[in-house]
Amino acid sequence: MKTFDVEAFRKHFPILTQQIEQHNLVYFDNAATMQKPLSVIEAERQFYLTTNANVHRGAHTLSSMATSLFELARVKVQKFINASSAKEIIWTKGTTESINLIAQAWGSEFLSPGDEIVLSYAEHHANIVPWQAIAKQKGAKIKWLVLDEAGRIDRAKLTQVIGNKTKIVCCSHLSNVVGKFNPVEYLIKCAKEVGALTLVDGAQAVAHTQVDVQKLGCDFYVFSAHKLYGPTGVGVLYGRQSLLEQVSPYQFGGEMIKTVSVNETTYNELPFKFEAGTPNIAGCIAFAQAIEFVSQHQQKSLYQYKQQLTRYCYQQLAAISAVRFVVKEIPDIPLISFYLDNAHQQDVAAALDAKGIAIRAGHHCAMPLMSYLDLSGCLRISLSAYNTIAEIDYLIDCLKMLMTEPAEQSNIASNSAPEEQVSEILALFAKQQSWDNKHRQIMLLGKTLKRMEKALRTEERLITGCESAAWLDISQIAGGRYLLRGDSDAKIIRGLMVIVFSAFNNKTAEQILAFDIHDYFLQLGLLKHLSPSRGNGLLAIVEKIKTSVS
Amino acid sequence: MKTFDVEAFRKHFPILTQQIEQHNLVYFDNAATMQKPLSVIEAERQFYLTTNANVHRGAHTLSSMATSLFELARVKVQKFINASSAKEIIWTKGTTESINLIAQAWGSEFLSPGDEIVLSYAEHHANIVPWQAIAKQKGAKIKWLVLDEAGRIDRAKLTQVIGNKTKIVCCSHLSNVVGKFNPVEYLIKCAKEVGALTLVDGAQAVAHTQVDVQKLGCDFYVFSAHKLYGPTGVGVLYGRQSLLEQVSPYQFGGEMIKTVSVNETTYNELPFKFEAGTPNIAGCIAFAQAIEFVSQHQQKSLYQYKQQLTRYCYQQLAAISAVRFVVKEIPDIPLISFYLDNAHQQDVAAALDAKGIAIRAGHHCAMPLMSYLDLSGCLRISLSAYNTIAEIDYLIDCLKMLMTEPAEQSNIASNSAPEEQVSEILALFAKQQSWDNKHRQIMLLGKTLKRMEKALRTEERLITGCESAAWLDISQIAGGRYLLRGDSDAKIIRGLMVIVFSAFNNKTAEQILAFDIHDYFLQLGLLKHLSPSRGNGLLAIVEKIKTSVS
Repeated sequence: MKTFDVEAFRKHFPILTQQIEQHNLVYFDNAATMQKPLSVIEAERQFYLTTNANVHRGAHTLSSMATSLFELARVKVQKFINASSAKEIIWTKGTTESINLIAQAWGSEFLSPGDEIVLSYAEHHANIVPWQAIAKQKGAKIKWLVLDEAGRIDRAKLTQVIGNKTKIVCCSHLSNVVGKFNPVEYLIKCAKEVGALTLVDGAQAVAHTQVDVQKLGCDFYVFSAHKLYGPTGVGVLYGRQSLLEQVSPYQFGGEMIKTVSVNETTYNELPFKFEAGTPNIAGCIAFAQAIEFVSQHQQKSLYQYKQQLTRYCYQQLAAISAVRFVVKEIPDIPLISFYLDNAHQQDVAAALDAKGIAIRAGHHCAMPLMSYLDLSGCLRISLSAYNTIAEIDYLIDCLKMLMTEPAEQSNIASNSAPEEQVSEILALFAKQQSWDNKHRQIMLLGKTLKRMEKALRTEERLITGCESAAWLDISQIAGGRYLLRGDSDAKIIRGLMVIVFSAFNNKTAEQILAFDIHDYFLQLGLLKHLSPSRGNGLLAIVEKIKTSVS
Repeated sequence: MKTFDVEAFRKHFPILTQQIEQHNLVYFDNAATMQKPLSVIEAERQFYLTTNANVHRGAHTLSSMATSLFELARVKVQKFINASSAKEIIWTKGTTESINLIAQAWGSEFLSPGDEIVLSYAEHHANIVPWQAIAKQKGAKIKWLVLDEAGRIDRAKLTQVIGNKTKIVCCSHLSNVVGKFNPVEYLIKCAKEVGALTLVDGAQAVAHTQVDVQKLGCDFYVFSAHKLYGPTGVGVLYGRQSLLEQVSPYQFGGEMIKTVSVNETTYNELPFKFEAGTPNIAGCIAFAQAIEFVSQHQQKSLYQYKQQLTRYCYQQLAAISAVRFVVKEIPDIPLISFYLDNAHQQDVAAALDAKGIAIRAGHHCAMPLMSYLDLSGCLRISLSAYNTIAEIDYLIDCLKMLMTEPAEQSNIASNSAPEEQVSEILALFAKQQSWDNKHRQIMLLGKTLKRMEKALRTEERLITGCESAAWLDISQIAGGRYLLRGDSDAKIIRGLMVIVFSAFNNKTAEQILAFDIHDYFLQLGLLKHLSPSRGNGLLAIVEKIKTSVS
């Protein structure tokens, strides 16, 4: 067998040659979204350049051509997951909407008080919160499947949870945190024995295994295009035809109707009944190209290569003594979750980012799983077939370096007056050209922040919008000025607090509100690297201060 | 003032140089979806080539950059419609979803039995069916605003409908059929007087006027990107902040939560509360570029040019004696709906399509308006600033030609045996290279179809999936063979029936099911021009026959 040519494969993905500051991009966040091959990007572009028109309103050739491409895309998806009819393929905007559609449209009609919905502790929020909402609405109950030590749904304990009151069992095919295939076939069998339906969240699985919905025997299967080389804004809901026919529409509008009058409206057939409004035409057509791309690269050597990446990455991480995997056993796919002893996950992720390595830190939209594993969060490395052994080596080197970094001191004196601190910080950062260096300075600044007493770490001092826990104490002192104190589990947040405090501390409300903090961040070169809305909490800190004083 | 340079403007839209068979594309279907300027297409492509990452999970630079662009796009939309905060801008997948969100999330909480929802007869289905659904759910009533002779909501009769029971008034800023601005400011004033909320459907208006939601004073304003030079799969819901804060989430999942546990979930702030799941990141960013494009071309001369197109097109159409406008008075934008005496709208649209002109025929997703105007459907011409006077002249020439075409006869004998007919039709179409000629042959074939007695035109013989009414009669005769008869208001459907009947008539069920009709259509060169799913009903006829005999 030919070995997998990763360098040739990488050429399909132009983004992989990007530089993050002075470093080559190492993209290890594939479980969040995958990169797109050129052929997919081109498919969307070509549609707009040559064929763009609305679909299903075919009074003209352009519209007919667009409709043909759009419906062919549906057939591609049908064949890709081996559904028995294209009518079973509903376009949505993503996995989340697919699940919401079923939870609402099916649930509001078929759930009764006392009915049970079975989920696992390892589900993504998208497969939890819609069910919590409909359960509350209908008086149904949620029951939880426990996990074994490897993080899979525990086969042995299934029948303790699935029973005669169970109406639907919803679980991921492959967890987005532990990277293990759940025993879905067995689970579906158990559900069938009690007459319950099954919904399988395939968001992570479709990129790593060939899905056959008929062989699985599930009732619903959902996934997103953007986690399978496709564009954002496109998702799929597969549902058994006879079942979908019983479910009332979810959204209402054009496309999904047969007739509308002031008194009565009749609905269209499948799949259109569930597709109100103009769909994401170009996105669906580009997704068909993504499926084509997958088919062209379905060679055994690619799967073996991914297995090789999984084993190598796992072994190399295991060799670092501070590494703690969140579950036992090597994962089934190159998706590994862990944390480091004595280092906050957000600090590790930020330090790796400064080296050009993109990984994910936090709760991974799976807070119940974090509680179940008794973690506040973790690091997740998720690889794709375009990643390399060399990239893993680089990651390991960076992690080792991180563990052994000598203690440095910041040049900024924590007792300077705020105005001086602002100038000192500006001067300091002006000298650091690379993000790597700026990042190190933030971490060093973090060390200058006086730690907050445990007693002050209360709920009302907690800042929401930070991936790591962070607290802020704002008290008014003489002359209407404010004294700011703060703390966080993550050094990077403590460093950012020093920067924010330098601008705001010991000032009046007027002075705080008048200070152009956005410009300050811009001058420091922070905005490109620190998300402006959530995640690192930079703006959350600013907003909390501004709201408190105004 | 400089005059508008349409030729320079057209250069932004590569699709306009497309050929539909031997003809230049004349795209007069802009109200269904607009063409995209190259800068918008490039914005989406560049995002995937350089910055693609998931948003709001910013542990790395790429994600921060994607989040920045994504949130900047939101601010662009905010400024574009002059909302007071970016928190008031919710990304959806389109106008239809925006309306569904409000109808469901607001309606299920704030509507009570006996409450009244006020709509106008001119609404698009997207602004009717969601309200019918929630009204039924909550025992609320729908009341209808009547129109004046020009097709606008009748100001004089507003207060007869809006009253103390009114909870919300929903209407289009600009109708997608009559092309007239509704008196929304007055309407909003009347609604406010009775304490009712207002939702304005701006899907058509945003491309033709500068929207200022604060000046309007509406509570909700909704529109789609794809009708404003933007990509498909992106929509906007504007809502007043204080109001949105009272409304519970619509969809549930990642992004929209603050915390999730097995027992309790708390929701995120605006706007994220309403944005569950990975959004259409690339689409939203490309839409920001579309808004940028609009801003760059907001010169007065462009508006005046569109007025010139409106007047010219209206006057030229008015000069054709067979033209009947669906409402009185010239429209406010270049969107004109009409029909021709003695010609079915679908035949006219198909004939124009054969000349490369893309217009829309049918009910335009506004069936209640069609009933109100006592029409089965109509033709709609909708122009954009990239359309030209020369294109209008060409349209008018084609329409005149259509009115005066000499009566021709088809060479196909209606009494041939089916096998012979198939060969005859294949031979005939093989000689017709252009779609124009093939189209004429279909029309001629239509003339050979024996008309069906009025008594046979029953509900159960009606074929759904045809834009024009069509009936099919299938009866079994000797030897298990089937006799097919059919009729339609549109000649083109009658012609297609002749083609389908040639393949199926006087055959057994086995023979019908064994015949490769898809290959037959392919050989005839029909599939590219006749939408495979709905609209013209070609496949609807085939499906009805196959279902009936199997």
